[in-house]
Amino acid sequence: MTQNIYDNAEFFEGYSRLSRSVDGLDGAPEWPALRALLPDLRGLEVLDLGCGFGWFCRWAREQGAAHVLGIDVSENMLARGRATTEDAAITYRQADMERLSLPAAAFDVVYSSLAFHYVETLNDLMSRVFQALVPGGHLVFSVEHPLYTAPTHPGWTVDAAGGKTWPVDRYLHEGPRSTDWLTKGVIKQHRTLASYVNMLVRLGFVLSHVEEWGPTPQQIAARPSLAEELERPTFLLLAARR
Amino acid sequence: MTQNIYDNAEFFEGYSRLSRSVDGLDGAPEWPALRALLPDLRGLEVLDLGCGFGWFCRWAREQGAAHVLGIDVSENMLARGRATTEDAAITYRQADMERLSLPAAAFDVVYSSLAFHYVETLNDLMSRVFQALVPGGHLVFSVEHPLYTAPTHPGWTVDAAGGKTWPVDRYLHEGPRSTDWLTKGVIKQHRTLASYVNMLVRLGFVLSHVEEWGPTPQQIAARPSLAEELERPTFLLLAARR
Repeated sequence: MTQNIYDNAEFFEGYSRLSRSVDGLDGAPEWPALRALLPDLRGLEVLDLGCGFGWFCRWAREQGAAHVLGIDVSENMLARGRATTEDAAITYRQADMERLSLPAAAFDVVYSSLAFHYVETLNDLMSRVFQALVPGGHLVFSVEHPLYTAPTHPGWTVDAAGGKTWPVDRYLHEGPRSTDWLTKGVIKQHRTLASYVNMLVRLGFVLSHVEEWGPTPQQIAARPSLAEELERPTFLLLAARR
Repeated sequence: MTQNIYDNAEFFEGYSRLSRSVDGLDGAPEWPALRALLPDLRGLEVLDLGCGFGWFCRWAREQGAAHVLGIDVSENMLARGRATTEDAAITYRQADMERLSLPAAAFDVVYSSLAFHYVETLNDLMSRVFQALVPGGHLVFSVEHPLYTAPTHPGWTVDAAGGKTWPVDRYLHEGPRSTDWLTKGVIKQHRTLASYVNMLVRLGFVLSHVEEWGPTPQQIAARPSLAEELERPTFLLLAARR
């Protein structure tokens, strides 16, 4: 199964202090762009793969979703999700995305935020997602951008004049990357941008939008450190339809 | 109009000595991958945008294309193309891709190799290409990869151990880049990978394949210097249908 780093105590403790954990969706700078890719959720059946603390599940219900199923591998995260949710139309389920089974044509929208780059057998999962969507149903997800996951040494190089560059290597060498983020030895799967797109197209999805996310001028004004995202994006957002 | 660097004497002289100029299609390592995206050309009407010396035009006719129209801005290149072509079903025409007019629903295949990254108003050109294709018609093209065009200083950084990295910056800053390649001040248009894909999708194309080109093991064995392409691709290949 995929490394369940979210049930590592040190990682979970660090993750719980991130802005996106404390402030929820509004703590994630890419959220407005990801939200813009979603259809009107009123009356829809929604699945969130890698739901974490359940922020998106609760938001989807506020938007009028009929039911929301949140799936996550981490019991730690689901426990907190359940403790902060009072809504019979939201269901949380513990499952490993590598071996997840989903009902056929059961969802209008499948959403996932920053979870698929942990999944080794993503093509299999995407195939099950395709079957689980109704015809015309929406898949909207984010992953870490391939430029962010590719390098042997992911980190800015700063020259004497303060100029920042991001040292890319191994871009076309797909496979696991071990990085130290919140704890040591976090395993992610590096895939090229083309691999994400072609995987969807081959499975029969019609691609509707690709976004290499960058901050708006307003976001940079409010949080100047975001400007470096314009040099090298961290987030890749994709939208497609069955 | 787009800078017509191919009619700069120094550039043309250098370009004429490249393997892809001397050996034609087989001198371009990405050609087998680009060729694989093309349909069977027998009986088809084909347009080559940025046809250069006409290598692809002649190859398309060898494959059985009914007619091939090759368009290029460079009189130098067209002159050589005409001088090496004896085929009434191939037409060469001088035109600037920024202001090109094309007949409606006239082509089954529109092909372009490494030309569109010189075009400033690419969305307009792609819109005209869409109209010029028959319904179901194929668009297959290559451009310089955004990782290749983005940086302020495009060139490998080599560390003490011989490890190579490619210093990325300005990835999300789209627009012109001036580089010195064969001559000084060659102007290319940097666009993100997402921009290429979304431009096609918005115009009504259905995307069929994206390829961030890398060499095969056989190509690396024959030409070891190609291995660096795996660290950071130079070529982006796209296929879509009207």
